[in-house]
Amino acid sequence: MAADPGPRRPGRRAGPTTTRDAIAAAARELFSTDGYDRTSIRAIARAAGVDPALVLHFYGSKPQLFREVVELPVDLGAVVGAVLDGDRATVGRRLAQVVAGTLEDPAARGRLLALARAVTSQPEVAALVRDVIHDRVYGPLAAAVGTEDARLRAAMVSTQVVGLLMTRHVVGVEPLASLSAEDLAELLAPVLQHWLTGPLR
Amino acid sequence: MAADPGPRRPGRRAGPTTTRDAIAAAARELFSTDGYDRTSIRAIARAAGVDPALVLHFYGSKPQLFREVVELPVDLGAVVGAVLDGDRATVGRRLAQVVAGTLEDPAARGRLLALARAVTSQPEVAALVRDVIHDRVYGPLAAAVGTEDARLRAAMVSTQVVGLLMTRHVVGVEPLASLSAEDLAELLAPVLQHWLTGPLR
Repeated sequence: MAADPGPRRPGRRAGPTTTRDAIAAAARELFSTDGYDRTSIRAIARAAGVDPALVLHFYGSKPQLFREVVELPVDLGAVVGAVLDGDRATVGRRLAQVVAGTLEDPAARGRLLALARAVTSQPEVAALVRDVIHDRVYGPLAAAVGTEDARLRAAMVSTQVVGLLMTRHVVGVEPLASLSAEDLAELLAPVLQHWLTGPLR
Repeated sequence: MAADPGPRRPGRRAGPTTTRDAIAAAARELFSTDGYDRTSIRAIARAAGVDPALVLHFYGSKPQLFREVVELPVDLGAVVGAVLDGDRATVGRRLAQVVAGTLEDPAARGRLLALARAVTSQPEVAALVRDVIHDRVYGPLAAAVGTEDARLRAAMVSTQVVGLLMTRHVVGVEPLASLSAEDLAELLAPVLQHWLTGPLR
């Protein structure tokens, strides 16, 4: 899963990018815990132990910083590869396994939840996330599946994934919340298959 | 669609309850525009033109007030009736029409969005919303459909509705965002049918 472009684990090597990375790590942490709108450049700077001017020097503005540190918790290449590898008729099952597996990982889930929080509180973030999610995940995925209506299919896959995140992990509706990843994947498979390859009208 | 913001308690009299109602109206408005966590008892009191102590007198606490003014934008009885009226094989289509029609109504959509915002920002609201949505909408709906796994089915219907709200109306992913209510209902029908009556494993 490991979409890990950034050194966000402890014990990372110091180096020329250390300050920039420290700012990114602090921003990621604060956006995730406090939400986008309650996280200030000043607070990020404080958490990173740098001057606010340095945050702006590296990242320009809060929206730009957010866009840079928004990390989708999946490696897109790996996902598309894994999902498309094999029978088109079981593409929904493979996507379901990726989704369920991703939600199982607390770090990945945390990043998705931070996105959800930011999106609901800030229209400017919604625009960023629209681009990020659509371009970096669902667009390529649906396009790779090679159907017509790829954008609509991608959007509907998105409804299922986002709705699952909200209902299972934010609201915590049972028995969905305590379903195992395996059972969840099985549950999702036919609907994701439908959105990817089924008749839309 | 009966997204009636008005007097929904039968037999309510004007007069003694006016202040209470004014507080509820102010709270509904502020929760909706500013979000749960940024809405204070003090701000609600100011908007209603009363003393903060009176807000607490009538409603006890902010979570209790929120729970009271959370209005689901549908008349539950009417929804269940409309959805269950007729062939079980087309129950998904009827629910899809209710969902699409509800999202078409700006007032109803506003209330749902206020809920989504509150839920993502406040764990205590998530618990309230879990109860409200589950008990007042999906639970009875799924139970009335009379399947086993009613709670899980209700949760999965919820994922679709919440995901649609977020993706279509918060993030605004196209072409989903500009789909007509009719096309949306048609798109949703088979998946809602699946969650209500299809095989889950």
